[in-house]
Amino acid sequence: MSVRSATAFAPASVGNVGVGFDLMGHALAGLGDTVRATRIEEPLVRVRAIRGVVTELPLDPERNTAARAVTSWRTRNSVPFGIEIEIDKGIPLGSGLGGSAASASAALVAANALLDRPLPVATLYPDALEGECAASGSLHGDNVAPQLLGGLVLATHDRVVPVPVPEGLTAVVVHPHFVLETRRAREALAGSYALGEFVAQSEGLALVLAGCYAGDLELIRAGLRDVLVEPRRAPLIPGFAAVKQAALAAGALGASISGAGPSVFAWFADAGQARAAGLAMQSAFAAAGLDSDLIVSPVAAPGARVVACE
Amino acid sequence: MSVRSATAFAPASVGNVGVGFDLMGHALAGLGDTVRATRIEEPLVRVRAIRGVVTELPLDPERNTAARAVTSWRTRNSVPFGIEIEIDKGIPLGSGLGGSAASASAALVAANALLDRPLPVATLYPDALEGECAASGSLHGDNVAPQLLGGLVLATHDRVVPVPVPEGLTAVVVHPHFVLETRRAREALAGSYALGEFVAQSEGLALVLAGCYAGDLELIRAGLRDVLVEPRRAPLIPGFAAVKQAALAAGALGASISGAGPSVFAWFADAGQARAAGLAMQSAFAAAGLDSDLIVSPVAAPGARVVACE
Repeated sequence: MSVRSATAFAPASVGNVGVGFDLMGHALAGLGDTVRATRIEEPLVRVRAIRGVVTELPLDPERNTAARAVTSWRTRNSVPFGIEIEIDKGIPLGSGLGGSAASASAALVAANALLDRPLPVATLYPDALEGECAASGSLHGDNVAPQLLGGLVLATHDRVVPVPVPEGLTAVVVHPHFVLETRRAREALAGSYALGEFVAQSEGLALVLAGCYAGDLELIRAGLRDVLVEPRRAPLIPGFAAVKQAALAAGALGASISGAGPSVFAWFADAGQARAAGLAMQSAFAAAGLDSDLIVSPVAAPGARVVACE
Repeated sequence: MSVRSATAFAPASVGNVGVGFDLMGHALAGLGDTVRATRIEEPLVRVRAIRGVVTELPLDPERNTAARAVTSWRTRNSVPFGIEIEIDKGIPLGSGLGGSAASASAALVAANALLDRPLPVATLYPDALEGECAASGSLHGDNVAPQLLGGLVLATHDRVVPVPVPEGLTAVVVHPHFVLETRRAREALAGSYALGEFVAQSEGLALVLAGCYAGDLELIRAGLRDVLVEPRRAPLIPGFAAVKQAALAAGALGASISGAGPSVFAWFADAGQARAAGLAMQSAFAAAGLDSDLIVSPVAAPGARVVACE
């Protein structure tokens, strides 16, 4: 008997991870979006409802990340039925935690579960990219890729590559309570760049990758700093320098902006260190007049999954 | 009894490797520079002679890469004797094969062998960088690092990280007989860059590193293309597009400019494929009116070593 309706959860994620702008991201445990996909007779994709922490999102399937992703997937795979989706937002808008991406990721995993033989999750990637495009206007997979696969992932224009995560590696993410529009964060990156900036940034990316593959935390510590994007975006985040400093003082391997911000992430060798550091990072935001939420999660957090079927 | 005189060989190298501008390089088997270091009474470093395929190099210790490297090393380690060096150049000048770097690397390994307890080779890196600076005016270790350590190496501003090389991986380097001054090749890179170029180039670097660590040649094939530097330098190399195309048509995982050029390198899954491709690449240079030399070498080629002591 066919599945009539499936519900999937997709986690929040840390995009960019400092050194992998538009290219690398990792999943976060706990926070996420939940999407229910239901078969319908009409050969189309529509959004029935948006609930949760964000409700003012477009219902128009062209402008809704989840509907656009599912439309792309349905067309590309000649799916013979229509799909209605209901979105339950757990991730705040403009937080730098991959919220728009998570709706697309969860919707795809839910829709895919309606098939008699669901497709491998990595094949959903191009459709998730297409969905992200509805929100950001560009194709970058550093949020959808780790949301689909879990863990730390390289997300290129046409493929996803899971990166091994050293045991115990733990992320702290502090989300201050103000909205930084992705568009504004992108505008801060306008203009031109010097080749030397790129060499320095590539160094960081290469060291972090080498450290992850070799299980060498000191290489990660040497590499996990963003000299290209962070200096241009940090002024948009009140208290950023103090929050980053609090993380480093508490032993972080590195700290930078999560996605387009304003959330700040830091990586730690173990969870105990991470929890203590998270409180210090929240205090630093409080000193800048900002309340915040705290997430402590393994970097190797699980990806999207089906949570209910009927 | 102390060593009075030591002779060391340092291999040529492929700098940049397409995706790792100023950051990644690998050694080449066969071609290289040989340097003899001899203890002298005077507390200084001097160049006694330069022989071989290049002789018009500066003898002035400040402007000679080998002497400047050894001076840096001698000072930093408080070496209690002076050193006289004789350089036998095997690597042509302005070839893009790391010639100036190889003199510095060989000189350091030879001088180091004069110590009663020679230092670990990786500790010679900052001095080799200092030597390179005499030739290029900037500190970049993508040639000296693989020359010292052998194989494929990430060379950051302050450390060297060997990268595992998949079994059988073979480089072809074709060196056309004309000189491209490093300065001219650097000038081609002047101006500003768009962020999107960096993202595309980072993708390539990340895929090549992931492919090397995971032993996955298809990831290397997906990543080994230079969208940042090659388009700006290729016009300086007659026949470049045809030579690159010949390599790709013969099954190369990727092909680009070696160092600052004009040599062209390509990577292959095995040595048999590489040899056939090398001849096709030479034919393409010949069609552009250029004679050339051919090197076929494992990417995991050995680094600098002492070849004689007395």
